[in-house]
Amino acid sequence: MENVLITAPTLQDIEEAHVRIQPHVHRTPILTSENIDEITGCKIFFKCENFQKVGAFKARGGINTILSIDKSKLANGVATHSSGNHAQGVAYAAKIAGIKAYIVMPNNASVVKKNAVLGYGAEIIECEPTLAARERTLSDVIEKTGAELIHPYNDYRIICGQATAAKELIEDLEITLDYMLAPIGGGGLISGTALTTKYMSPTTKVIGCEPAAADDAYRSFKAGKLCTNDAPPKTMADGLLTNLGEKNFEIIASTVSDIMTVKEAEILAAMRLVWERMKIIIEPSGAVPLAAVMKNKAFYKNKKVGIIISGGNVDLDKFFNH
Amino acid sequence: MENVLITAPTLQDIEEAHVRIQPHVHRTPILTSENIDEITGCKIFFKCENFQKVGAFKARGGINTILSIDKSKLANGVATHSSGNHAQGVAYAAKIAGIKAYIVMPNNASVVKKNAVLGYGAEIIECEPTLAARERTLSDVIEKTGAELIHPYNDYRIICGQATAAKELIEDLEITLDYMLAPIGGGGLISGTALTTKYMSPTTKVIGCEPAAADDAYRSFKAGKLCTNDAPPKTMADGLLTNLGEKNFEIIASTVSDIMTVKEAEILAAMRLVWERMKIIIEPSGAVPLAAVMKNKAFYKNKKVGIIISGGNVDLDKFFNH
Repeated sequence: MENVLITAPTLQDIEEAHVRIQPHVHRTPILTSENIDEITGCKIFFKCENFQKVGAFKARGGINTILSIDKSKLANGVATHSSGNHAQGVAYAAKIAGIKAYIVMPNNASVVKKNAVLGYGAEIIECEPTLAARERTLSDVIEKTGAELIHPYNDYRIICGQATAAKELIEDLEITLDYMLAPIGGGGLISGTALTTKYMSPTTKVIGCEPAAADDAYRSFKAGKLCTNDAPPKTMADGLLTNLGEKNFEIIASTVSDIMTVKEAEILAAMRLVWERMKIIIEPSGAVPLAAVMKNKAFYKNKKVGIIISGGNVDLDKFFNH
Repeated sequence: MENVLITAPTLQDIEEAHVRIQPHVHRTPILTSENIDEITGCKIFFKCENFQKVGAFKARGGINTILSIDKSKLANGVATHSSGNHAQGVAYAAKIAGIKAYIVMPNNASVVKKNAVLGYGAEIIECEPTLAARERTLSDVIEKTGAELIHPYNDYRIICGQATAAKELIEDLEITLDYMLAPIGGGGLISGTALTTKYMSPTTKVIGCEPAAADDAYRSFKAGKLCTNDAPPKTMADGLLTNLGEKNFEIIASTVSDIMTVKEAEILAAMRLVWERMKIIIEPSGAVPLAAVMKNKAFYKNKKVGIIISGGNVDLDKFFNH
């Protein structure tokens, strides 16, 4: 065992990100549920980013990144591809910065999500719903417009923005957490969460939570090298489909204690439990950490557990139109 | 026009109820939504009783009533009939008081609701799902057990308990509301809300909101005499099926400014809007006042509107199993 030096944002970087974004984001509430504590046998503190601007933590990273970029570079706007929360995060951040945003979205993205992006004044460029088509279209858009690329997770400015959710959770609690849990998709949220926790609450162990159906982070973590999902994964946790980013993996490998995976039925049960008992809407991705706790009750027994609820953007058409 | 003297709880009665129940209920949060304000054109303050104990305001009235009764009268427990939130309110209140509760429930009540009642240690007596069968069964239970009847709404102690939700809303706001809205079923919540508002914020007008499919309160209010729903009404707002109580009607007639009715599709749209934009679960009954605001935008334009969200007890089977 030896200490390995990696490149990563410092606590100061995260603090500066927090100052930068604070005027534009909510300090979201931390909720608890006696009922869910009884069911799980531990004490859970939910950091509710479902109540965040745009309905997800993505507002934090989007705003921090765009407000970090030199204004001279933003004359032609910003661009990204996303079918979900990152699209809204960038669109909202661009509106705040008063610049143009080009969002490449798959043509099967839901009308609700498209309308949200349009509502922030962004321009949508549709493409076929494949990663290749999305990347090609984005590259075309950037070439044509000169817009600045905003990557959804493989970017230290994004990581610092996402890191501020855990910062608020640690600051607002009077106790020290035993565990800090967050879902893993591309790794922006978990890498930021892990850095914050390492700096501000070093005895707290960080555990990443991932759908078994899209377990590239779990496999990467165990193998010690970046692995990808071979086929496009299928999981209801639609925020966690992407492969881990390189910068994110490097931080995860050196700061995260473990990664736990959960099955689809476990995600659905955890999501339903929160809807039913806490009366709040969380998205499937946001239910993944609670699913991991419910699956590993003995491990978490009597522990104090922080959970970052990633967001609350659910396609309600599936629930209302039947 | 002349002042009519009616029998009704005083401000002091409501204040005493509040002191009595405070150790056992949540002071629920008041939420706002820029987004919904933009859509409706007014400023809405939602008093979120969906976050209340048992998931609805009914905990307030149940606790106030049971804690108001002389202990010598409670030796044989309490009894009521209800398929929904009142059942849970009484069961929870009886648990607090350490006494037995007998709840008559229709045999088609959902498993979730039955389990919640059982979870508070109450005994369920099932009957056919008609009002006649429920009343007959309850009367049998009371005769056999000597339990004290807890009426869901036609009782001043219940009214005082429900009145405390509006009391907290008025106390916690720094502004004066133009309108205070609550749904109407049996009339416990609206009569309590109207009394509180009359005493504590006399310039605020109180408006009751009711499904058009169960509009006995609307017709009673317009006719100046108690009318009933002829046939058993059919509305998704399952908390608002009952006919208005006599005591409730008398208070409503002298303190409520108007009653507005809304159609089923309007209730569903309002409920969905809250789920989608505010990321909180509210029950159909709780969506009825917002539906009334959305239907009467010109009337509420630029006004400050308080809405009591009755609860968040939704049968999620309908949403998850399909």
